[in-house]
Amino acid sequence: MHPIIITTYDWVPPMAQGYVRDLRVRWILEELGRPYKVEVTPVHPKAASHGQHQPFEQVPFIRDGDLHLFETGAILLHLAQGTALLPPGHDGAHVTQWLIAALNSVEPFVMGWAQAKFFDKDDAAADRASGMMMQRLTQLQAALEDKSWLMGDRFSCADILMADILRIPGDNDLLTALPGLAAYLDRAKARPGFRAAYDGQMAHWRQAEAKRRLP
Amino acid sequence: MHPIIITTYDWVPPMAQGYVRDLRVRWILEELGRPYKVEVTPVHPKAASHGQHQPFEQVPFIRDGDLHLFETGAILLHLAQGTALLPPGHDGAHVTQWLIAALNSVEPFVMGWAQAKFFDKDDAAADRASGMMMQRLTQLQAALEDKSWLMGDRFSCADILMADILRIPGDNDLLTALPGLAAYLDRAKARPGFRAAYDGQMAHWRQAEAKRRLP
Repeated sequence: MHPIIITTYDWVPPMAQGYVRDLRVRWILEELGRPYKVEVTPVHPKAASHGQHQPFEQVPFIRDGDLHLFETGAILLHLAQGTALLPPGHDGAHVTQWLIAALNSVEPFVMGWAQAKFFDKDDAAADRASGMMMQRLTQLQAALEDKSWLMGDRFSCADILMADILRIPGDNDLLTALPGLAAYLDRAKARPGFRAAYDGQMAHWRQAEAKRRLP
Repeated sequence: MHPIIITTYDWVPPMAQGYVRDLRVRWILEELGRPYKVEVTPVHPKAASHGQHQPFEQVPFIRDGDLHLFETGAILLHLAQGTALLPPGHDGAHVTQWLIAALNSVEPFVMGWAQAKFFDKDDAAADRASGMMMQRLTQLQAALEDKSWLMGDRFSCADILMADILRIPGDNDLLTALPGLAAYLDRAKARPGFRAAYDGQMAHWRQAEAKRRLP
């Protein structure tokens, strides 16, 4: 099988290392046992060609044969097609529903909080954003009930997105009052596919750091 | 063909009338010429059963036969399947890409601005959010080039989501410096499917207002 080509940045600041969204694509490819190669595009200044591959000048974007694709949600739906990570019929509609819930009903609130807290450093805005985020996370935990994964016993591509998004509150000690969600995140991070994807991304940044230190 | 059952609120404040997301579902069903019926759930206080249909206690959610679904993005992908609004193959992957770009790369920034401006009434936060939103909208206009729709000549389910999201900056005079995007939004709003969906939603609120005035 031809390798999927993932393009990510050539370097990111240490606080972003481990959180760049190529992780989601690496993760699904590890789950599927599909080969992939990683290419880079400059984080700063951006290449003139970057916007042609990703109109918002973000990463990752992929090539799968002659298909070029951006948006991790769309990449995951494409790669999962025809596999157990996106079953056919009603179950597939529900996986898509949870994948989009992650992207549109959870991630905007997590990113809103992270933006206010870490980038804008605006305490009042961060407090408001935290309240909105925690409400969504509380509702998500209620919906998860005692299921292992969003779809019950079956891990799906929606869990990859949802768990990756939950890593931000998880790594900032914001899931301590939500043990069901914390356990869900732990289950996801314990998967060999996540470990390989995460280790792969961190190795990429170590190489990038080593290159920057060259004379 | 059995009607799709859309559930929306029994009432919303005047500023939200015309913007409730059942519009997106009405719009695609009008484009497809499929019958639908609208049911209601209380906006306040929420029904105990609401969270079972939509874990974040939002609307809309639908029933299509025995399939229950929430998240407008997933509902549109489901309803568009097998129609010209979601073609097969690479084109379908690209429609999905743009649909998810609308939900994850554009809408969070539009909603971030609307939240800061209209709900939090925080000028500093609204200014920051406006800058981020306008950057995304400028990038989106560049990607649209001189195409009629995101996919070129062919209107797709991604245009329904993207145009609905653009109505918020459009209706607040924020697209005057982005004539390409303003023209795209005008094209979308001129479609009979949009008109029927919008008129249908507004008629729903007029009925709701009339009921509230009953003794």
